[in-house]
Amino acid sequence: MSDNIQKLLMNEVNPPIQQATCKVSVVGCGAVGMAAAFALLTQGFCSELALTDVMADKLQGELLDLQHGLTFLNNIKISASPDASVCAGSKVIIITAGVRQQEGESRLNLVQRNVDIFKNIIPNLVKQSPDAILLVVSNPVDLMTYVTWKLSGFPKHRVIGSGCNLDSSRFRVHLSQKLNISAKSCHGWIIGEHGDTSVPVWSGVNVAGVRLRDLNPKLGKDDDPENFKQVHKDVVNSAYEVIRLKGYTSWAIGLSCAALTDAINKNQRSVHALSVAVQGKHGIDKDVFLSLPCVLGENGITHSINMKLEEEEEKQLQNSANTLAEVQNGIKF
Amino acid sequence: MSDNIQKLLMNEVNPPIQQATCKVSVVGCGAVGMAAAFALLTQGFCSELALTDVMADKLQGELLDLQHGLTFLNNIKISASPDASVCAGSKVIIITAGVRQQEGESRLNLVQRNVDIFKNIIPNLVKQSPDAILLVVSNPVDLMTYVTWKLSGFPKHRVIGSGCNLDSSRFRVHLSQKLNISAKSCHGWIIGEHGDTSVPVWSGVNVAGVRLRDLNPKLGKDDDPENFKQVHKDVVNSAYEVIRLKGYTSWAIGLSCAALTDAINKNQRSVHALSVAVQGKHGIDKDVFLSLPCVLGENGITHSINMKLEEEEEKQLQNSANTLAEVQNGIKF
Amino acid sequence: MSDNIQKLLMNEVNPPIQQATCKVSVVGCGAVGMAAAFALLTQGFCSELALTDVMADKLQGELLDLQHGLTFLNNIKISASPDASVCAGSKVIIITAGVRQQEGESRLNLVQRNVDIFKNIIPNLVKQSPDAILLVVSNPVDLMTYVTWKLSGFPKHRVIGSGCNLDSSRFRVHLSQKLNISAKSCHGWIIGEHGDTSVPVWSGVNVAGVRLRDLNPKLGKDDDPENFKQVHKDVVNSAYEVIRLKGYTSWAIGLSCAALTDAINKNQRSVHALSVAVQGKHGIDKDVFLSLPCVLGENGITHSINMKLEEEEEKQLQNSANTLAEVQNGIKF
Amino acid sequence: MSDNIQKLLMNEVNPPIQQATCKVSVVGCGAVGMAAAFALLTQGFCSELALTDVMADKLQGELLDLQHGLTFLNNIKISASPDASVCAGSKVIIITAGVRQQEGESRLNLVQRNVDIFKNIIPNLVKQSPDAILLVVSNPVDLMTYVTWKLSGFPKHRVIGSGCNLDSSRFRVHLSQKLNISAKSCHGWIIGEHGDTSVPVWSGVNVAGVRLRDLNPKLGKDDDPENFKQVHKDVVNSAYEVIRLKGYTSWAIGLSCAALTDAINKNQRSVHALSVAVQGKHGIDKDVFLSLPCVLGENGITHSINMKLEEEEEKQLQNSANTLAEVQNGIKF
Repeated sequence: MSDNIQKLLMNEVNPPIQQATCKVSVVGCGAVGMAAAFALLTQGFCSELALTDVMADKLQGELLDLQHGLTFLNNIKISASPDASVCAGSKVIIITAGVRQQEGESRLNLVQRNVDIFKNIIPNLVKQSPDAILLVVSNPVDLMTYVTWKLSGFPKHRVIGSGCNLDSSRFRVHLSQKLNISAKSCHGWIIGEHGDTSVPVWSGVNVAGVRLRDLNPKLGKDDDPENFKQVHKDVVNSAYEVIRLKGYTSWAIGLSCAALTDAINKNQRSVHALSVAVQGKHGIDKDVFLSLPCVLGENGITHSINMKLEEEEEKQLQNSANTLAEVQNGIKF
Repeated sequence: MSDNIQKLLMNEVNPPIQQATCKVSVVGCGAVGMAAAFALLTQGFCSELALTDVMADKLQGELLDLQHGLTFLNNIKISASPDASVCAGSKVIIITAGVRQQEGESRLNLVQRNVDIFKNIIPNLVKQSPDAILLVVSNPVDLMTYVTWKLSGFPKHRVIGSGCNLDSSRFRVHLSQKLNISAKSCHGWIIGEHGDTSVPVWSGVNVAGVRLRDLNPKLGKDDDPENFKQVHKDVVNSAYEVIRLKGYTSWAIGLSCAALTDAINKNQRSVHALSVAVQGKHGIDKDVFLSLPCVLGENGITHSINMKLEEEEEKQLQNSANTLAEVQNGIKF
Repeated sequence: MSDNIQKLLMNEVNPPIQQATCKVSVVGCGAVGMAAAFALLTQGFCSELALTDVMADKLQGELLDLQHGLTFLNNIKISASPDASVCAGSKVIIITAGVRQQEGESRLNLVQRNVDIFKNIIPNLVKQSPDAILLVVSNPVDLMTYVTWKLSGFPKHRVIGSGCNLDSSRFRVHLSQKLNISAKSCHGWIIGEHGDTSVPVWSGVNVAGVRLRDLNPKLGKDDDPENFKQVHKDVVNSAYEVIRLKGYTSWAIGLSCAALTDAINKNQRSVHALSVAVQGKHGIDKDVFLSLPCVLGENGITHSINMKLEEEEEKQLQNSANTLAEVQNGIKF
Repeated sequence: MSDNIQKLLMNEVNPPIQQATCKVSVVGCGAVGMAAAFALLTQGFCSELALTDVMADKLQGELLDLQHGLTFLNNIKISASPDASVCAGSKVIIITAGVRQQEGESRLNLVQRNVDIFKNIIPNLVKQSPDAILLVVSNPVDLMTYVTWKLSGFPKHRVIGSGCNLDSSRFRVHLSQKLNISAKSCHGWIIGEHGDTSVPVWSGVNVAGVRLRDLNPKLGKDDDPENFKQVHKDVVNSAYEVIRLKGYTSWAIGLSCAALTDAINKNQRSVHALSVAVQGKHGIDKDVFLSLPCVLGENGITHSINMKLEEEEEKQLQNSANTLAEVQNGIKF
């Protein structure tokens, strides 16, 4: 600081606070973390932003690059450090850290590698932000949300996986393109396990409350002459497709994180498909995290919505739960 | 609440919180208070809004009318009650309550009538929102800010008068129209007493850092061939003009309040012309509130900016201070 | 303009344009028109705004008051004149002009008085903004939309009544309060005639695609033990209630207008309950305007959504259509 | 499209338009182009977005990734194609295409390589968007803006280089950190050539109209005891620093592009440091493009602001102009 000019220019009335209330942290500053950070900043969704990552140089570069744009946004404090204590006092912590699956690597092996990383991160984070909501984005997200919950010691309603919030958005966008209507006016939900085995709830797909299944009773079924099932397949494929085409996904998952953070910070009580503890629901008897529609507010999840699922849909959820539970049993904490 | 459907539709995971963090209250729901409330809502500047006013019916009507539009905005909780405890737990309280000057009424008389109202309001408000920032809008604003500070027992940096933030905006808008450049790119400051005796700081008027006084050395002076002094006169008159034409002012002061609230909630550390305690500055020896440029953040005013004023400008500030002090001496608390 | 300083300060490279592309006009600057104007400005939904009203003083006061706040918003040109040519070149014209029903006045009489006003306004407006979308808000809105269409000579898809867009919002807000979930996550539609005889489409009411009628089969029916019918009654009453309490409605209808304008200007193709020509739909054989869910884009309505209505619901629409047609027959153009 | 369900669900009233009015195109979808695109989308600054790039796969991946997030934003049409005709009908075209300097490559050689690329791009773009504003970001930006102007045949006021808009933002951010005041309240301008030889206009640096040079007369000079010159050096270095740390710059330049696009689309008439034709100003006798503060509106640049520069500052501008002119003379069109 420039002492002389500062003294001449201004008089201190009261010292500035060291930390703003709506502080959000992003842990892991790869493409996903940075898209989330940029979406938070451009939409004014936090009053302070902290970034942390093990790659110190990259992190410092991202910090400077974001700060250089502050005249085009509302001013907020942005900080970054490889030391996770930069996240202290956060209201929301978005966790995107972790390694990617290697060719031929088993799922359990991948999870275990990420668990080992999270063991180093989570305890520190929660110690310094004991009231935060943890929003887990790292894949496989349903497992890593469970892991984060275990490592955090937090109550379950404050550990949330971004889960099928993105799958549901993709689903609605694909419907939107099929119907040439705004994605915001095409309603549909994907629940269950994020990824290949996710479950589209065809019975709820609607525009203006008009259920598409009332127009086409075979909607989403194998013998649907319009083959709507393909829409879900396209959603599942589209993640792979984006990765194949550009190497990674970033913008949509970043927007998803920002929207969820805003729902928390503004206590919106809006409904989102999020990975939450599901034992006891839809015949699931394992202690796993899967996506269901949930009401999200400033203290995390307050309610889950009871969908009336078909037998096959419930079975798919149970299968996912069993598979996840099996992997969970193999994890060394 | 509809117990049956709610039970069937959703399961409680954790009870909702009763109050969001960025709660803002508006005290006095006339045209100014409602314009501030609407500007806060449409710009997403708070996560909870409370309204209070003595006119219970009007208040309830305003509440319903705002709530009915919540599908067009982000969802937030809005509440209203003639009982000021509806404001409990606020981060910012915008105070627009008070009576208007009657024909022939002395200023002291007006102030005393408003003091009597504030005596009933302020102690309750501060008891239930002990950490709030109080943003005073009621006129005469410099006196009522002093009164609010006295009645609140708050430190001075948490009691702020909206003061010349609006006058400065009007000044920039008038310059903008004269130059046909965006008001956001026309810079100029009005300080001192809100209203007729406000002081335009001509030395600082600039576009892109080009001081207009370097182009016209007589800018703002009596013998200025371009008669820029008229711009300030127009600013002073414009308040009267709006009142003459539409009966009251609302939109611009509402936007001013909303912008200041956002600066507080987002800890922006931006500079605004606000009515603050000025004893010891610019040769003022009275304990009064007058507008100076101040740095505003989440804990209120942290710094005031030292302007290099001309002798005449300082004298004007001192005169205002003396007049205000005299009125203050006559107030019965 | 200040010629000297302007010449010294800046060099003209190219003359400024006289009119921005996304110009929106508000015709009638009472509480509704001004709430719409303020909602447009605060949300950045237009690049130029024109206001017109017969009350020249009030209008000028509103103009100044809005302009004075331009430093707190993005800069745009705002103009106002009792001469409707101030609206020339608009993309969207929001029409809120008209008189209110007097005690004991027949509906036809009220309509005729408003028709006489519109005869003076509409031809001028459309002549100078031949490609505009006309958004009619004046009551009785379904009739006045028909009247506007007749007087304008515009194709039907460019004359839209705000209709049940507000009723639907109120309906969702009331459901939201019953369920303690964000209004944005409570879906439901009110169609037909704006006001007392509007039709809530219970079959489509849902949260996360879960139809409330699947949870309570009697939802909205006379023998519903949870009496959801009352929610619709509350919606109908709430307009009267707000008027009784505060004298008029403004904020919610203003937000509705702003949202529709944004959907047009951004070509969103989103679905809204709007008053449109309905002959041939739902067994209606009269050439009247009633609200149905419609896809709205930059060139107005492109599609209406086919709801599967119950017999009673269709009958209610037909009754409304017949009543409107009868009034229309009595209008002297 | 799904013909059956679409026919059952909705009736066409009028065909949708093929193109929205506020269409913005991004040419070159590397890190800069995509940051600009994402900043445009998240801030709602266009009603249609087109992307083009030679890397077809990457481009398609970016398109899908952006589209997948449309439920979290306002719906707009986004399209992408390696064929630049996807940009037809744009109001603003942001040009970020081009190659980077190779080790040991002369500046002229780099420019010539980029000219060869632009020869293929620009004529097509301008043919299909004859009224567009071209916003050039590719480096060296001042030269490439000149080249774009030459190749486009457009009048000079519709070919703009992003130039020192970013340098000025960085300058204000660095001042902001020194003073612990919002960057939005720290005013200062950097003009001239984008990059190492840019010129900070110390005489205009101010907070609330208080010129820092009135507090420290040696501000920015070699013998300044507070060494403010270092702030400008830091700005110059910071671009290199970000590239060294993260490999490229993206967020701040993306925000700069988005802000300029919004100023154009909303006809804001705000002042920005932009690369424009400067012959005849500040003693420059060459037909080159350099950054000066300019008024930007819907039809491009309407005015440039006359800064009162010091001799040394003018000399620096003239030197830059001469160097640029020399390179321009060597370009083969």
